Amino acid sequence: MNAADVERLVAEQIPLGKTLRIQLEEVSPTSARLLLRFDAAFGNHAGALHAGALFTAAETCALALGYMLLPNTEVICQTKAVEMRFRKPARGDVWATAQPLPSSDGESTRERSHHDELLARLTAEGKIDVPLLVALADQAGERAAEGTITLTLRRL
Amino acid sequence: MNAADVERLVAEQIPLGKTLRIQLEEVSPTSARLLLRFDAAFGNHAGALHAGALFTAAETCALALGYMLLPNTEVICQTKAVEMRFRKPARGDVWATAQPLPSSDGESTRERSHHDELLARLTAEGKIDVPLLVALADQAGERAAEGTITLTLRRL
Repeated sequence: MNAADVERLVAEQIPLGKTLRIQLEEVSPTSARLLLRFDAAFGNHAGALHAGALFTAAETCALALGYMLLPNTEVICQTKAVEMRFRKPARGDVWATAQPLPSSDGESTRERSHHDELLARLTAEGKIDVPLLVALADQAGERAAEGTITLTLRRL
Repeated sequence: MNAADVERLVAEQIPLGKTLRIQLEEVSPTSARLLLRFDAAFGNHAGALHAGALFTAAETCALALGYMLLPNTEVICQTKAVEMRFRKPARGDVWATAQPLPSSDGESTRERSHHDELLARLTAEGKIDVPLLVALADQAGERAAEGTITLTLRRL
């Protein structure tokens, strides 16, 4: 998929994402960012955004990035696991971000080698698990939640 | 809170739970169960229930149990952390369950000592983190997801 395909996926093909009116703002093979607007209808019993809404935004952001990791290979992405910590109630709009886990390689070769390593593993195994860092922050950059979402990528 | 209070909380005071039409079926100090009906509007890009809907059901179930753990003490519960694994796409109704983590005590004294231990810690510390086991299963009992949700209980 290219960025336009992923934008269409998020805007049109994820019903719960549409229900929460999630808006993908940026996506590349190295990061994704989307907006979850505050809406009391997506709240919890304390008047903040529900942890389930925050997780849905983070998961959708991870998925968008997942589809960009191997732009020339047809894959389907599914969420396999999540670990998240909720730090602060979100009482306004929040932005979810996703990025690959930092690798031990030097910064200049990181993007290329991550891509090549994923592709080699996918070719060998047919499916691979890819952990992605996710975070949710408000307009001032204060973190509402953060953690890791692991996607399974399967070759189509 | 008693069971009727918790039923009212889930039915009326959690907007995202209302949006997903989550129905609490049973709650006691040792377990909670609720129903998330399949609805394509809560789906993902593969036509199954979205991981965010499954997590919201699990989190709401954990919260319902959290409010029952110390029925004679006024607390507020918030979700602090989650670890979940998604095992199987959910293409029908699912039931979320929550229960305390098994303790090392003998079965007959477990419920009483868990309550006493939580109350002693809450009294000493003002707030405590309580991990709860959660699972989502279909009508046949097949697991769609499972994991641990940690609540923070604060004395009011």
